[in-house]
Amino acid sequence: MDKKTMKAAVLDRPLTIAVKEVPVPQPRQGEALVQVHCIGICGSDVHYYEHGRIGRYEVKQPIILGHELAGTVVQVGTDVTNVAAGDRVAVEPGVACGRCEYCKGGRYNLCPDVVFMATPPVDGAWAEYVAVRSDFLFKLPDSLSFEEGALLEPLSVGIHAMARGKAKPSDRVLVTGLGPIGLLAIEAAKLYGVNEIYGSDVLAGRRDMAVDMGVNGVLDPAADLPVKEQLHQLTGGAGIDIIIETSGSGRAIADSIGLVKRGGRIVFVGLPAADAIPINISALVDAELDVYGVFRYANTYPMAIQALSGRKNGVTKVITHAFSLDEIEQAVETARTQKETSTKIMIYPNGEIKP
Amino acid sequence: MDKKTMKAAVLDRPLTIAVKEVPVPQPRQGEALVQVHCIGICGSDVHYYEHGRIGRYEVKQPIILGHELAGTVVQVGTDVTNVAAGDRVAVEPGVACGRCEYCKGGRYNLCPDVVFMATPPVDGAWAEYVAVRSDFLFKLPDSLSFEEGALLEPLSVGIHAMARGKAKPSDRVLVTGLGPIGLLAIEAAKLYGVNEIYGSDVLAGRRDMAVDMGVNGVLDPAADLPVKEQLHQLTGGAGIDIIIETSGSGRAIADSIGLVKRGGRIVFVGLPAADAIPINISALVDAELDVYGVFRYANTYPMAIQALSGRKNGVTKVITHAFSLDEIEQAVETARTQKETSTKIMIYPNGEIKP
Amino acid sequence: MDKKTMKAAVLDRPLTIAVKEVPVPQPRQGEALVQVHCIGICGSDVHYYEHGRIGRYEVKQPIILGHELAGTVVQVGTDVTNVAAGDRVAVEPGVACGRCEYCKGGRYNLCPDVVFMATPPVDGAWAEYVAVRSDFLFKLPDSLSFEEGALLEPLSVGIHAMARGKAKPSDRVLVTGLGPIGLLAIEAAKLYGVNEIYGSDVLAGRRDMAVDMGVNGVLDPAADLPVKEQLHQLTGGAGIDIIIETSGSGRAIADSIGLVKRGGRIVFVGLPAADAIPINISALVDAELDVYGVFRYANTYPMAIQALSGRKNGVTKVITHAFSLDEIEQAVETARTQKETSTKIMIYPNGEIKP
Amino acid sequence: MDKKTMKAAVLDRPLTIAVKEVPVPQPRQGEALVQVHCIGICGSDVHYYEHGRIGRYEVKQPIILGHELAGTVVQVGTDVTNVAAGDRVAVEPGVACGRCEYCKGGRYNLCPDVVFMATPPVDGAWAEYVAVRSDFLFKLPDSLSFEEGALLEPLSVGIHAMARGKAKPSDRVLVTGLGPIGLLAIEAAKLYGVNEIYGSDVLAGRRDMAVDMGVNGVLDPAADLPVKEQLHQLTGGAGIDIIIETSGSGRAIADSIGLVKRGGRIVFVGLPAADAIPINISALVDAELDVYGVFRYANTYPMAIQALSGRKNGVTKVITHAFSLDEIEQAVETARTQKETSTKIMIYPNGEIKP
Repeated sequence: MDKKTMKAAVLDRPLTIAVKEVPVPQPRQGEALVQVHCIGICGSDVHYYEHGRIGRYEVKQPIILGHELAGTVVQVGTDVTNVAAGDRVAVEPGVACGRCEYCKGGRYNLCPDVVFMATPPVDGAWAEYVAVRSDFLFKLPDSLSFEEGALLEPLSVGIHAMARGKAKPSDRVLVTGLGPIGLLAIEAAKLYGVNEIYGSDVLAGRRDMAVDMGVNGVLDPAADLPVKEQLHQLTGGAGIDIIIETSGSGRAIADSIGLVKRGGRIVFVGLPAADAIPINISALVDAELDVYGVFRYANTYPMAIQALSGRKNGVTKVITHAFSLDEIEQAVETARTQKETSTKIMIYPNGEIKP
Repeated sequence: MDKKTMKAAVLDRPLTIAVKEVPVPQPRQGEALVQVHCIGICGSDVHYYEHGRIGRYEVKQPIILGHELAGTVVQVGTDVTNVAAGDRVAVEPGVACGRCEYCKGGRYNLCPDVVFMATPPVDGAWAEYVAVRSDFLFKLPDSLSFEEGALLEPLSVGIHAMARGKAKPSDRVLVTGLGPIGLLAIEAAKLYGVNEIYGSDVLAGRRDMAVDMGVNGVLDPAADLPVKEQLHQLTGGAGIDIIIETSGSGRAIADSIGLVKRGGRIVFVGLPAADAIPINISALVDAELDVYGVFRYANTYPMAIQALSGRKNGVTKVITHAFSLDEIEQAVETARTQKETSTKIMIYPNGEIKP
Repeated sequence: MDKKTMKAAVLDRPLTIAVKEVPVPQPRQGEALVQVHCIGICGSDVHYYEHGRIGRYEVKQPIILGHELAGTVVQVGTDVTNVAAGDRVAVEPGVACGRCEYCKGGRYNLCPDVVFMATPPVDGAWAEYVAVRSDFLFKLPDSLSFEEGALLEPLSVGIHAMARGKAKPSDRVLVTGLGPIGLLAIEAAKLYGVNEIYGSDVLAGRRDMAVDMGVNGVLDPAADLPVKEQLHQLTGGAGIDIIIETSGSGRAIADSIGLVKRGGRIVFVGLPAADAIPINISALVDAELDVYGVFRYANTYPMAIQALSGRKNGVTKVITHAFSLDEIEQAVETARTQKETSTKIMIYPNGEIKP
Repeated sequence: MDKKTMKAAVLDRPLTIAVKEVPVPQPRQGEALVQVHCIGICGSDVHYYEHGRIGRYEVKQPIILGHELAGTVVQVGTDVTNVAAGDRVAVEPGVACGRCEYCKGGRYNLCPDVVFMATPPVDGAWAEYVAVRSDFLFKLPDSLSFEEGALLEPLSVGIHAMARGKAKPSDRVLVTGLGPIGLLAIEAAKLYGVNEIYGSDVLAGRRDMAVDMGVNGVLDPAADLPVKEQLHQLTGGAGIDIIIETSGSGRAIADSIGLVKRGGRIVFVGLPAADAIPINISALVDAELDVYGVFRYANTYPMAIQALSGRKNGVTKVITHAFSLDEIEQAVETARTQKETSTKIMIYPNGEIKP
């Protein structure tokens, strides 16, 4: 490629982000250069933008954020055979080592040496181009849009939650927390053939989106009626088999133990702010529950592409806003300040702002 | 059988237990009458004896306690074909309905209609005889003693914990709480081929018993050195794959999250006294742990008999005391007041006090 | 119920079937009496009608056939609490003992003491009424028709095949044999979220039905082009993850080994006439395949009802004919002689011949 | 390392093998150079030596055979951190790509791009030194000998077979074929806690070795009494849960279907010479069996080291002969011509011929 520099949104320090001209990355051996068509804003991006750190990860030097993307391969390095220039691809943003016990055992999301976009000090892809190891690029069939491709990243969390929770078509599922991860977990449940799904969130706007995505009913944890009663009314007394907890709310986490059936499963996805949440362990033991943590995902992209391909789905319903890369500050400020109405914001670094 | 009455230990109210003459039960259709050779005292028996209740189960009328037993079939009801008079058998004390979704799905321990010995108002078997549905009787091979047969009950909890925790020969296992359940969980781990087992307890006597049963090392949670450091020293920095928590200690439960490897498994067996234990959910999510509750057991008796049969094992090492049925008050008082030194107390209702 | 006798289709000997007046069965303890709304004709029914035996099962005395049914509870025996008179129910026709190792382990389809309708000498339900142990009756929600209820039986085979084959939304599935079991296996795959399904049959009419049920493509094993080539063309070179073999054709069985991907799964449902089929074991080992037998089903009815409930489905598309009970001879003769065009024939023993 | 050339056994064409001086391989990035302490002769080595090909793999140019080895790291390439010079290591001989769907999914043994030692045209390690990607080197604890380290390779097949067959301590296991793979599968079963193991082979010497390794009984398929009868006598009528078929004998493969219990599992490891073996598919379906192919192994080395470490085992009992590298022709001729008495032959390329 002739172009030597490109636009990228650089976060210098919290709340200070600007589009700058930076070198176009050169694909090394095994890598491909992808022209970014669209890339989402994740809650973690907003958190780094606002606070400069998440747990042990701290923004100590200028960083490019963004890790939910799809685009077009424009150049490949040596030894790349699975993609070629011109291919439309979704990008899996965490590159695992492929050699540790976790990688070899099929759980590469737990690889201690994973290099994950937009996790300091690793740059992400709020930029015109990004270089990625090609085995983490997945060709999009014609039936999937770039937007669907970019949303495979948050959808992957939902799919991984279904796999961890062993979701079956006969399960009744409750998703607590109806932000983008929760809404896409609803889509993931539908892909797994789940036929009865409920959603729970304190924000009416989010509950409305869940209804729009086709859940069988919604709960308001802030209502006077206890959640358990609401659930009883909605399900006609039938129990919940699986709870997917995406809110990180301490109360939602604590309540989950009492809301599933005996022998039920709870999948924790959301990270609470508090160091510890009081959990009724006796109830967990008495009901012989399974509790599963979900950290990112593994092996979900080929699965999601196959499952979505040519099938009507509601994935892109989560997109509420679209901006150009030049509008990045407005975009992240929207995400930061309008949490209820901005579910998923999509950035278009190369023109053509669509949805 | 000619005998019409038998001796049984009847608990009239907390701390008031006496041997009385009661009718010998008659085996109904599908049942067999078992002459009890030996029967253990479980922590739950002691708790009913002392407090008259456990959670929702309350001693409202006189009850016979005891549910860890083996003996000899002396009479069978109609339609019994799997055992005959003279057979030495272990008794599984919870009779499930066989017809609900849990029973049909292979998890009969979660059957809402289970009839479990020594759980008010159901009588147990601190008595000369007991009638049991014959499909919950399991013939003991000659190589297994009555004592081993009686200990299949608490051992079953350990075996079920291994099955729930998916124990493999390559796992490093830590058992927290070294009472009879914990010690027999160690035996269960050995049956599953686990080759590196650690134990943890605040009582030195219990740690000594674990060492005697062949663990690779023991921890003292009350020592100055943090548990994590002790574990690091013992394992040479290798992580723990599975924790089996049997103590019910709030601290042991809370600590467990930080003591397993990424992707590790925690099995909660012990019931804490507190309503809720503070759990670091963020760490559970970040390390993508599995947490499993264990409520009693299912399908463990045939497995345990097969696994133990003709194999050297340390199961009976947990027996520290033996009493006749007439000495029942002394026996339960020993269990109640000498927790550190009385691991498993065995009652012999029909003479021949052995071990 | 006042009625003392009822109409039933009695097979006296091969090819000799007639509607006779027989006593209405009385529900015993734990049983319910069901008025049969509709009941399908299964290939096994036709086989008994024509040949008088299937393997070790032989028609030695007059028998009532039929085991795919739904109806209405009209009377309950003692100790029945899960259904009541007036309930619309689907009937699972195999009553397992609930007490053997298979039943307790969750695989009650392998129970050696199962009592299965229309398997000599056990009567089936080509009759006005049938008495069934109530835990094998499953209430139909309003959204499911009696016909769908009756079809839960053959659909269960497909669902069990999916469970055995560990079907996931990302799998590509090939169903070989497109009779009622094969067509309903397609429906089962859809319920499991499978998004790419192919069908194979030598009969054009059956392939057409599969297309009508929404498969992505069909194969003709009798065509000049080898099956492997046809499959390659249909899938664009992508491999098949799971084959569900329902035809019992020796050639389909033998071919299956070479048609799945490395690490793929093959589920054998159809029973071949030949004693042995030549299998390429070296290829099975080299590709590290899983092969699963499917014998009937277990725990599928609640699952199927939950999965189908309120969801658009193609299950009843397999019904090609409907007859009254009085027309039973015509019905079985149609099934026997018009295999290509009569996929599923439904009998209505109590009037109201619908679909 | 100063040394520039080394001795290696080079097979020029079938039956023509000689020790030659060849360059010492240089460890590239991520590789380590291992001084071979001992290396076994595998049946595949003998087959290449004798016939020059196995299936699609053909010896078209001179090749160094051998792939069952342990030794000492003498030099590391760049970016190697898991081992250092001086480390005693076992060598896993198949280096997978780490990037394909099989590798990422935890089944790297199915990687289409695996580079496997001594599989034409890839050289093996009948040599003084070999360079290996360091993530396929596993440190041996002091408690494991080099010989045990070398035997981890064939033992891995047995361990993988146990994992594929879901072996549990309660299973009764029959191993058919008692060559080195079969005998080490017995050891693997013991590591998995299996307590009742039978062996079957037509050669008396091999049956004797199985007895020496501690099986509960042996069968002779060539005896007058049918195998099923022999098995019935040995087990007292109890069924077999898992068969591990390692012989590749068509008869053993065909018989296996009728020798396991309903719901049982069969693991095919041995490769038959015939293109197809007649299999009773109806019986497989009726008994709802699972059949699993086993192709090499994955993730077994860390598991085996952990499981064997510090535990008394019979692994090295399979070693019947030891030779220096200079004696390679005598060694392979012994393997070729004395199949009954030479179970595992060990080569010592660097002096010190031990066992």
